[in-house]
Amino acid sequence: MNLAIVGCGAVGRAVCDLAESYGHRITALADSTSAVTDAAGIDVETALERKTRDGTVGSADPERALDAEYDVLVEATPTTLDDAEPGFSHVLGALERDRHVVLANKGPVAERYDDLRSAERDSAGRVLFEATVGGAIPVLSTIADLGAENVSAVRGVLNGTANFILSRMSAEGLGYEHVLAEAQDLGVAETDPTFDVEGTDAALKCAILANVVGTGETTLADVEVTGITDLTPSALSLAREGGRTIRLVGEVTDGDDQTVRVGPRLVPEHGALSVSGTRNIVQLETHNAGQLNLSGCGAGGEATASAVFADIARLQ
Amino acid sequence: MNLAIVGCGAVGRAVCDLAESYGHRITALADSTSAVTDAAGIDVETALERKTRDGTVGSADPERALDAEYDVLVEATPTTLDDAEPGFSHVLGALERDRHVVLANKGPVAERYDDLRSAERDSAGRVLFEATVGGAIPVLSTIADLGAENVSAVRGVLNGTANFILSRMSAEGLGYEHVLAEAQDLGVAETDPTFDVEGTDAALKCAILANVVGTGETTLADVEVTGITDLTPSALSLAREGGRTIRLVGEVTDGDDQTVRVGPRLVPEHGALSVSGTRNIVQLETHNAGQLNLSGCGAGGEATASAVFADIARLQ
Repeated sequence: MNLAIVGCGAVGRAVCDLAESYGHRITALADSTSAVTDAAGIDVETALERKTRDGTVGSADPERALDAEYDVLVEATPTTLDDAEPGFSHVLGALERDRHVVLANKGPVAERYDDLRSAERDSAGRVLFEATVGGAIPVLSTIADLGAENVSAVRGVLNGTANFILSRMSAEGLGYEHVLAEAQDLGVAETDPTFDVEGTDAALKCAILANVVGTGETTLADVEVTGITDLTPSALSLAREGGRTIRLVGEVTDGDDQTVRVGPRLVPEHGALSVSGTRNIVQLETHNAGQLNLSGCGAGGEATASAVFADIARLQ
Repeated sequence: MNLAIVGCGAVGRAVCDLAESYGHRITALADSTSAVTDAAGIDVETALERKTRDGTVGSADPERALDAEYDVLVEATPTTLDDAEPGFSHVLGALERDRHVVLANKGPVAERYDDLRSAERDSAGRVLFEATVGGAIPVLSTIADLGAENVSAVRGVLNGTANFILSRMSAEGLGYEHVLAEAQDLGVAETDPTFDVEGTDAALKCAILANVVGTGETTLADVEVTGITDLTPSALSLAREGGRTIRLVGEVTDGDDQTVRVGPRLVPEHGALSVSGTRNIVQLETHNAGQLNLSGCGAGGEATASAVFADIARLQ
């Protein structure tokens, strides 16, 4: 397939690096200030070197990537809230041209799901977004194959940074600030970790899951969110004395009493939800298939790119 | 879709029971001695009641189900080895008519993979077989979406009966014969448990996994198999002293040194592979997505039927 990639962060870069090995050609690449396009396939290496050196991928305006020839638009710009722009407009433009869209950007799916589906209905293009939840883990494809109406609840550890911090606090008896600094040194946490440790990122993923399995539109504002910043080492050691630990768990329960929430929860120390480090896990409660547990790398350029390519495979 | 179901054991029955709720119509149903067909949709309840009462699903010859009008043939007859008949001929007949096939029967996929793929290439129909490995767990769809060439190894607990026996032996310190009798009482083990406890069933699943991720045809004869019948409670308690337990693990390693084997292995007591009871787990080692762990119900009519419906969804 011919791919146009918008966004050149860790995920966009990994999609660029790996596209050829998955049998695809990149005909356009844009970051926020520049673009490079070539219907015969751009020179990926040169574009990425230029990005590293000069901060731009090419000399064209970024809009040129959106007008380029492609089969699938890969939208990998940073997640934005509320109107989810400029990601949402990128998606809309592709659908208006009857092109497929694969999203790694959570904004349009978490904040404007009904608008997204409405635009998809009017288009010959389809929209997939496996990369927005659980990184490499095949969460949304599994829900689609089971039939969303057969999934009654979804629970999971959906943020690797928060999970890394909780795992380390629990294993080493260290305080939150200490472990956060360590995570920042390791590149596991951002300089401003708010999005991860306050639960916003996990809440966006829960909104997406709720949109997929639920009946009405859910946005970030509908999710009850508590982060991990107030957790103390003593709470974790108390949990451990009872054979439990604490994880930041997102939950979506379908039905009349639909609940969508994220918060620290006591989970069995050796249970499925107590994954370690940056791993994520998603538990699906289903009507006919019992409980399915899916775990893996929840973040990282290559792992997330792998989910992008899985979506592209499903479009073929 | 219009479904013809061949085989009326636990899986065939569950597919019959659930088809309507998944939006499908059953136009033909056969067991080994009888059939019922109706292009407008058979009366499922009457057919299953008759099966329970008289041992037959209808008054027609079983071959009539194969000649019926349908979009997808669901092959759910018992797994047979070597030439995998009569299952293989059922599949061939459907493909020759350019119909899709969804298999719950492991025989044709484990024993005649090249013949199966060759027949599929000559047909407008496709062949899917998620239900043959890991019951409800989305193993093969995940491999397909990742790209089989991106999966370097597969490891897993693939037989619920053997796992139930090992879990109980370990938890209770009981002997093999005692736990086997208990499993038979509970309906978890068959009266003749050979297929499960000698590792044959897990080996067939490994042959299927090797066929999907590997380069050359693998059959049961190519799998190194050791069962669990010689395991003693003392081996399990010894393992536990070292923080480990024993599970019947199937392994497929791709590459030049491709190995396909099933046998009892020491695994960490609280690790991903030490699932309890009849649950199954599959670990995929991938090139770009790290390690994915997928666990769930490995057997049972409804769980396996759920995988059949997931395949049908992918055909639409």
